[in-house]
Formats: sequence, C-alpha cells, structure tokens
Amino acid sequence: MTQELVIYNTLNRKKEVFQPLHAPHVGMYVCGPTVYGDPHLGHARPAITFDLLFRYLQHIGYKVRYVRNITDVGHLESDGDEGEDKIGKKARLEELEPMEVVQFYTNSYHRAMDSLNVLRPSIEPSASGHVMEQIEMTQEILDKGFAYESNGSVYFDVETYNKAHNYGILSRRDIDDLLETTRELDGQDEKRRSADFALWKKATPEHIMRWKSPWSVGFPGWHIECSVMSTRYLGDQFDIHGGGLDLLFPHHECEIAQNTAVNGKPSVTYWMHNNMITVNGTKMGKSLGNFINLEEFFDGSHRLLDKAYEPMIIRFFILQSHYRSIVDFSVEALHAAETALKRLLDASNNIASIPVSDASTVEVKSLRQKCYDAMNDDLNTPIVLSHLFEATRIINSGIAGIEKLSQHDLDELTDLFKIFLHDLLGIQDSVALKDSSYEAFEKAVNMLLEMRQEAKRNKDWATSDKIRDDLTKAGFVIKDTPTGFEWSLA
Amino acid sequence: MTQELVIYNTLNRKKEVFQPLHAPHVGMYVCGPTVYGDPHLGHARPAITFDLLFRYLQHIGYKVRYVRNITDVGHLESDGDEGEDKIGKKARLEELEPMEVVQFYTNSYHRAMDSLNVLRPSIEPSASGHVMEQIEMTQEILDKGFAYESNGSVYFDVETYNKAHNYGILSRRDIDDLLETTRELDGQDEKRRSADFALWKKATPEHIMRWKSPWSVGFPGWHIECSVMSTRYLGDQFDIHGGGLDLLFPHHECEIAQNTAVNGKPSVTYWMHNNMITVNGTKMGKSLGNFINLEEFFDGSHRLLDKAYEPMIIRFFILQSHYRSIVDFSVEALHAAETALKRLLDASNNIASIPVSDASTVEVKSLRQKCYDAMNDDLNTPIVLSHLFEATRIINSGIAGIEKLSQHDLDELTDLFKIFLHDLLGIQDSVALKDSSYEAFEKAVNMLLEMRQEAKRNKDWATSDKIRDDLTKAGFVIKDTPTGFEWSLA
Repeated sequence: MTQELVIYNTLNRKKEVFQPLHAPHVGMYVCGPTVYGDPHLGHARPAITFDLLFRYLQHIGYKVRYVRNITDVGHLESDGDEGEDKIGKKARLEELEPMEVVQFYTNSYHRAMDSLNVLRPSIEPSASGHVMEQIEMTQEILDKGFAYESNGSVYFDVETYNKAHNYGILSRRDIDDLLETTRELDGQDEKRRSADFALWKKATPEHIMRWKSPWSVGFPGWHIECSVMSTRYLGDQFDIHGGGLDLLFPHHECEIAQNTAVNGKPSVTYWMHNNMITVNGTKMGKSLGNFINLEEFFDGSHRLLDKAYEPMIIRFFILQSHYRSIVDFSVEALHAAETALKRLLDASNNIASIPVSDASTVEVKSLRQKCYDAMNDDLNTPIVLSHLFEATRIINSGIAGIEKLSQHDLDELTDLFKIFLHDLLGIQDSVALKDSSYEAFEKAVNMLLEMRQEAKRNKDWATSDKIRDDLTKAGFVIKDTPTGFEWSLA
Repeated sequence: MTQELVIYNTLNRKKEVFQPLHAPHVGMYVCGPTVYGDPHLGHARPAITFDLLFRYLQHIGYKVRYVRNITDVGHLESDGDEGEDKIGKKARLEELEPMEVVQFYTNSYHRAMDSLNVLRPSIEPSASGHVMEQIEMTQEILDKGFAYESNGSVYFDVETYNKAHNYGILSRRDIDDLLETTRELDGQDEKRRSADFALWKKATPEHIMRWKSPWSVGFPGWHIECSVMSTRYLGDQFDIHGGGLDLLFPHHECEIAQNTAVNGKPSVTYWMHNNMITVNGTKMGKSLGNFINLEEFFDGSHRLLDKAYEPMIIRFFILQSHYRSIVDFSVEALHAAETALKRLLDASNNIASIPVSDASTVEVKSLRQKCYDAMNDDLNTPIVLSHLFEATRIINSGIAGIEKLSQHDLDELTDLFKIFLHDLLGIQDSVALKDSSYEAFEKAVNMLLEMRQEAKRNKDWATSDKIRDDLTKAGFVIKDTPTGFEWSLA
C-alpha cells in the first residue's frame, strides 16, 4: 500500500499499524441501524466515520468488503433480554406488519445516508434474513457447552465461558465483580445469572415476529445476529469491526464471546468505536426532546434549530472532530461549521481565478503528505482540515495578489481539495445542480452581471444598482472583485 | 370506495369487478427483479404498471399492502431446473461474494426505479432471507404427497397434483399433452417427468449459495420463493398477484400449484399480467444487442439511441400503451412520446396564464369522470391521456383567447392534471429542480426578459434582440405572448 495506516484498536487500547489478514483484501463489519424510527445524528456519526475509513482504505489500494447490517428483529426495548421487540412494538402502535415498519425506516435510513453522501456498503444483510444461521450458531454454542436451554429460551453461560476464555476482554470489565454483583438468581428467572444473555428467546403469545427452532417458536437474541452476519460474509477471521462506543458493552463483548465460544479464538483483529454526540452538553434522548432527526436538520423543522442545514454541513460538522472525541452539537457550532465549510468550498472553486506565475512565493508541495500523515494517524480529520485551511489561506492570498503561484502549485492545490475534501471526507459542493440546466441558469446570471458592468462603465448607476439589488433580493450574493465580479447563491 | 374498478383477471380471461377479501385492505404481490444485471426496459414495465395500480387503489380509498420481492437465489440460467444460478454465475465471473452482486444490482434497481418515480413497495423481501420458510413449505408439500425426494433434491409431482387439483388452470395448457410429451424419464434424470419442477436442489460442489436442509445442503427452487413470501406477508388468501406475461408459465402456474398443494385451494383472487416490450418489432434479448439498460436511456449511451431520454419520458412512453398491449420501442416512438409529454406539461404549467372569465365557452366538467372511467376500465391509461390531450386543447384555446374559461373550470383543469398526470400516472415535471436555488434562477431569467420588454418599449431593438439571442444560446426557449413572454429550458 502507498500509505501506512495506524488505527486505534479498542481491544488493546492503543494505536496499531493496520495489517490486514489477506492484503490487499480487507474485511470490515459495522453495526447498522435498528430500523424502527427516523434516522438521527446518532445514526449519522458511525455511518460517516466508517464511510471515511471505507473510502480511505480503498484510496490507498485495498479491496474492501464492507458489511453493514440492518437490525430488524431481536433488539428489545431494554437493549437487553427484557421488554418488547423495538420493531414489533412500533408495528403494534402503527397497526402495521413488522416488515412494513422495517421497510419504511430502512428506506428513510437509506435516503438520509445518500443525502450525507455515505457510500452504500458492499453487503447490507438483515437479521431476519439470517435466522436459520443464528439457530445453527446457537446450537453450536450449546454443543460446546457455553450455553444452556431454559424454558424454551437459550442463554449464553458467561461464567462457564469465562473459565475457558476471557469475558470482558474488550470492555475490560472485571468479570469477578460482574459475577459477584449478579449472583445466581435462585430460579426466579430463566437465566442463571443476570450477566448471561439470550441467544434465543421463546416468543410470548403476543410476539409477532417468530420462527421455529429446536427449542421453541421464538426469535434470536440481539447479539447473535452480528456474530452470524459478520462471519458469514467475511469469514471466521476478519480485519475490522466498527460501531458506536455505546455498543462496546454488552453488544460487542457478547459478539466476541459468541465467536470465541464456537471457534476457540476471537474473529476480529481491530475493534474501532466512534464516540457519542451530545446536544448542548447533554446526552441525546427521546425523553429529553433533544433528539433531532436528520430530516429535521435538512428542513430546519426542529425547535432547537434556527434554520435548515444542508446534509453537507452535518457531514462536515461531524468530521471536524476526531471520531474518538465527543461531538457536542449546538446551533452555534453548526453555524461555525457552515461558515468554515463555505470558506473551504469557495477557495476550492476559486483556484481557477488565480493568475498563473512562473514561480510560487509560497510553499504548497508539503501539504499533500501532511494530509496523508493526518489520515494515517487514526483518521485525524481535524488535522486534515487544518491543512486544507492552510491551503485556503494560500489560495485567498493568491486571489488578492499577495502571493504568486505557479501552474504546478495551482494544480497541486486543486488535487488537494479533490482528494481530501471531496473524495475522502466526501464533501460535495452544496450546489450540486451542476447539470445542463444549471449551466444555462449560470449564463443568465452572468449576462445580468455583465449588463451591470456595462452600465457601470456608462456611469448609469441607477441600472447598475437595480441589477445588484434585484439579484440580491432574488437570493444571490454579488461581490465586486478587482477583475470583475463573483456571485453565489445566498 | 368512490370508484368501481374493473380489472382483467388472467385466471378467468375476462374483466371482473375488483372485490377485495377484506376491504378496505388490499394485499398485492408482484414478482420483482432477479438482481444479477443492470435494470432495463423489461424491469421498468412491470414496476410502472403495478405502481400505477398501487397508486390508484390508494387514491380510491384502499389501504394497500404491496409486497414486491427481490430474487437473489435459486433463479437458474435456464429459467428452469438446469444451469448455474444467475447470481452465483455473475459472482464467479466478477470474483465477488454473491451477496455483493445482489447488493450492487439491488442498489442500481432502486436508483432506476426512484428515477422513474416508482413508489417503493410496502415490503420488499428477499428470497435468501426466507430459505427457512421455503424449506418448511417444501416439507409441507412432501407431507401432502405432492412432491418426492430424489438424490437430495425435492421435486413437485405434477401428475399426482393434477389428479387432485388442476395443473394448468392459469396458463390453460393441456396437462395431458404436457404429460404426454414429457413422458417418464426412465431414471435418466432425478425428475420423474420433465414437467416436474424443483422445490429444493442439492448443491453441486461449486455452487456457492447453499443452506442446510433435511434433504441436502442445497438451495431452494425458483418458484417456491414467491409462494412463501406472498403468503407470509399477505396471508394464505390474498387479492392480487402481478407480474410480466413471461412469468405466467411456468412460474405463476407453479406458484398456484404449490399454494394449492398446501392449502387445498389457490391463494390469489386476481392474476394480472403486463405485456412485453419489443424493440423495433423484435423481442429484447441480450444476444440481440437490443437490450437497453435504463441508465443508457438516461444518459443516451446505447448505440440504438440518438440522445439521452429523461426517466419521465420512459415512464410516459410505457403508460401511453395499455398495460396488456405490447409496447414496441423505437427512437421514433420515443421522440413522439417526448413531444406529447412536453405538450401536456406545458399546458399544465400555463393554466395560470389564462385570463379568468365569468363563464366558460367550453365544457370542462365531464373530463374528470371520463378519466376515472378510463382508469376504472382495467387501468386504461391511453384513454386517460386522450382526455388530458382534450384538456390541453382547451387550455391552449384559452391561452390563444379562442375560448373563455371561468375560475371554477380553470381550477378543474388544474386538478385534472394534478390527479391524473402527476398523482396517478406519476409524471413529475421534468425540471424537478423546484428548490430555493431554482426559484432564484427563475427570477434572474425573468429579470432579463423584463429588461427586454423595457428595451422593446423604448424601441431599443439591439438590446432586445441581444437578450433574446444570448438567452437562446444559453439554452432557453423564449416565446412572446400577447401579454408578455414565456420561457422554458430547451
């Protein structure tokens, strides 16, 4: 590969050189959404984080098989073994077949991710499409002695597993503490210990989503789906498993236990976790009223927002922080992101207007490798952006005539934005109407501004002012420059 | 319901009043794509036909659960029981995991259907996600004595089934002829008769997509998936089953046999089939080089095309014919469709420019019911369009000042286009850039044309001509009208 990538491995709590098992192939699995509600910021962050990694791995020469699942069964309200199925509950409330709920929210998740320019994964399997394999894996874990059946349900036996392996290897929870505080439940419960978790649950009569199994008519536990779908499409051993930090325990810890129980060793080399998003310093929560859906950002309809924010502003806002830092959302921070993004895009669009000099008076060449170095350092996007802002200062100095730039350096600046801002950070120019009608309209606006220039030359200030004022009222920003004019949409 | 819909039931070869089993609920199943290649005209026609039905049923007050499947396993090259799996073969050729092939072509199918303004179905299940249920149904058919196991595969026993029920009820093939010409195969084959069809196939060693079953590690037959997915989401008895005429035999005939074998009676009340598309009078075929992908229409890249055709032209082109007629594609026919569509859209956009009169000099009121009558008559879209062209003539006469129209009739004309052209036929205005930047641009063009009017009033013909010529060069069509001007994108 052309670049040596270092990534932070949550498993070992340190940065490690990325070495895939079967270079140039990379297998990567990321936990996708539970499709029972509108996609929100909490969905955007992991999707954008691992989209960045997917893009970068391919950019530096890997062939990546990226699997991201759709959870459409087994995720209970408690995020544990109790409560109603999240999708089943929504279906009951809306009087729909659960799969109608799944389809509806899968479609809206896809629409939102497309808006955010998140690339589709190579394979997007759904949990309900792999119940058969989940039953098989549960049987294998039973056969190995790391699970027990109880009243038609099957539970993973954490204590027995921990005697042979290490439960807590990822979360670094102290298993003795865990078992101590969750002593045996004296038969009050189907589970022997509360640390145990369901691999298969017998369905109650009102539970709609149900399949036949050797133990009962029921449904798979939440954790087993990811163990099954990752290894089915990436093999028993694969490179990267990603997800939000909120999934580290118990979900990912349980995944490791399940795969290790069957294979005798863990499946994943690198575990990667993106950090959380807070809203004005507070955790997001439906009950807190600060749960902003992506559609609400895009149309500005949430009460915490002052206006609509284009998807690219949300994407940029998230990438301004390193993926392992908390992102705190506020209207002020969004405004700042909008301004900063506009500054970068304007600079990138105005490179062509810089006069070409024989030699540059400023150093440009080193920026590219500096950006790569930042990407190689665990995808350090804020540092990448700081280099792009350095490039922006150079471009603006070139436009103002303060610095001179050679054709070679102008091309280098063009490349820099193309590679890092557009291809890797995935930022599209916000006016993405660059089709033939857009070009026609562009020409019409230019015609008006040339008529204004002409009026100015004729000292016909009334006409010149009228054109500027009418265009401003229509929604354009008009700027006079030493060489003529620039315009943009407000 | 507000309208009495009559549909042609292929099962009885006649038009019948549509009476759902559980009004206002309607269950509707349509065979979706086998996702191993780019979506083409042959995918567009059934999708658009049943999208029209889906829209109309909802419009007249039904609550529709519309299930359209994704075939991602079991569809063999021969469309029968022989040959390689279509997706497995593509995966082998492209060195991909079969599910990567499925994901790739499912995404491109969705993109193309979104472009054609085909609404997403309520549920879009995939065959590979329902292998467990296919195994169960196969077992039930075996238990009823209508199938036999042979060398790890399971075949449906057509002759035995036909003694109890009626094989050929849909296609009206003569079963005695069929059995006569497909006499017993003397053990040369796994099948007893060539009319028999696979419910489960044992996988050969090189077959990648495979699941465990009571009979072998293998994969489901092509026909069983639709029997399973339709009844899983719509119940054992449901209202409408649709698909292309090419699926009538054997696919739909086999579906009926499978469901009847298990339930003792057929599942579907109304069978509906859209007719085929020919290209310059010839059947479409990959080997004939006349297989035009939808993307090739949209970007004009196929050698049979003279230019790009917007998705709405394709949609309109298909709806110009009744769904049970053959559509013959040719560049001339596409041109005609483009011109006709532009005429309708222009009329619909220009209603607002007609002066309001106290009373109309032309009869408008009856058009709405005439359009409903056409829709009620087995979705007769060419007749609906003929009424919209009548409305277009009225609008153009109104613009020309030949006819007078009251506000009430102008509103009626606006409604007519909204309901029938936009909501039901699903035609979007081709310039679908109606966002805030579009409005700003529109104002800029209007500014230029008002400056031209001003120049004309001042007899400054040079300026007036220059504005018209420059706008024309930029890609606009400028038209002078008695009251001022009209413009459109060329």
